[in-house]
Amino acid sequence: MNNIKKSIVCIVVLAVGIGFAYAQFAKPEDAIKYRKSVMTLIVQHFKGLGAVVQGKAPYDKDAFAKNAEVLKVLATLPWQATLEPGTDKGDTTLSAAVFKNQDEFKKIAMTFENETAKLAQFASSGDLEGSKTQFGVVAGSCKSCHSQFRTK
Amino acid sequence: MNNIKKSIVCIVVLAVGIGFAYAQFAKPEDAIKYRKSVMTLIVQHFKGLGAVVQGKAPYDKDAFAKNAEVLKVLATLPWQATLEPGTDKGDTTLSAAVFKNQDEFKKIAMTFENETAKLAQFASSGDLEGSKTQFGVVAGSCKSCHSQFRTK
Repeated sequence: MNNIKKSIVCIVVLAVGIGFAYAQFAKPEDAIKYRKSVMTLIVQHFKGLGAVVQGKAPYDKDAFAKNAEVLKVLATLPWQATLEPGTDKGDTTLSAAVFKNQDEFKKIAMTFENETAKLAQFASSGDLEGSKTQFGVVAGSCKSCHSQFRTK
Repeated sequence: MNNIKKSIVCIVVLAVGIGFAYAQFAKPEDAIKYRKSVMTLIVQHFKGLGAVVQGKAPYDKDAFAKNAEVLKVLATLPWQATLEPGTDKGDTTLSAAVFKNQDEFKKIAMTFENETAKLAQFASSGDLEGSKTQFGVVAGSCKSCHSQFRTK
């Protein structure tokens, strides 16, 4: 396979993988509202898992696993809305770096999806210690994206 | 089984079914923000499905099924946040009727979850005609809740 073909395959895989077909936005404000909503839910569910990981809330296997499963689905949602042109302006903390460095952004987005899926696996198998370690990996993944692609 | 036992079983089933263990809210405003975020996403994904159902967007089996699957997960999320005391005040359209008529609210919430899950089944099997009919059922379910439990 030559390099052009490889690039096309790679783009298609990424486009499918990070959920490009999920949603269409009539205007930039809609995309901003959508992705902020996703982030609100991600934070809430991540905090719920975090409370258990930190021993501040009791461990209930089923509830923890369901929470992680919801997080896994939410993790697939923000990317198309984040790559909508013009959405680094207005009521948002998105950095224009997303548009200048799309490949890096997509790579980090996929890492977040994959690490969240792994957390859901640990959680559904009832492996609390594995979940705790993986929770830290997911947290690191959040941080590495925010440090590059968020303005504050 | 006597009536008290039946009631307890019923409450437990509802509590698990409608996702009571998913999220905890420090204050009413957090619950309002959370459920509004869920509704924003539900509307966006439902619109995406609706565009296909109405022939305004092309039918792509995998994208349509994935969209319906996301909707199915989102449909499980809003209820705990909706039943948080005091959240009929502030930046919300929630009617206080929710608190006065919780059994009816929970029944309608479960109907929405179930009908959305059926839509995801039709969509994943590639049954577009079945999906179109079921889309209408889900839309009716939205409406029946909003007419009773939303102030505008």
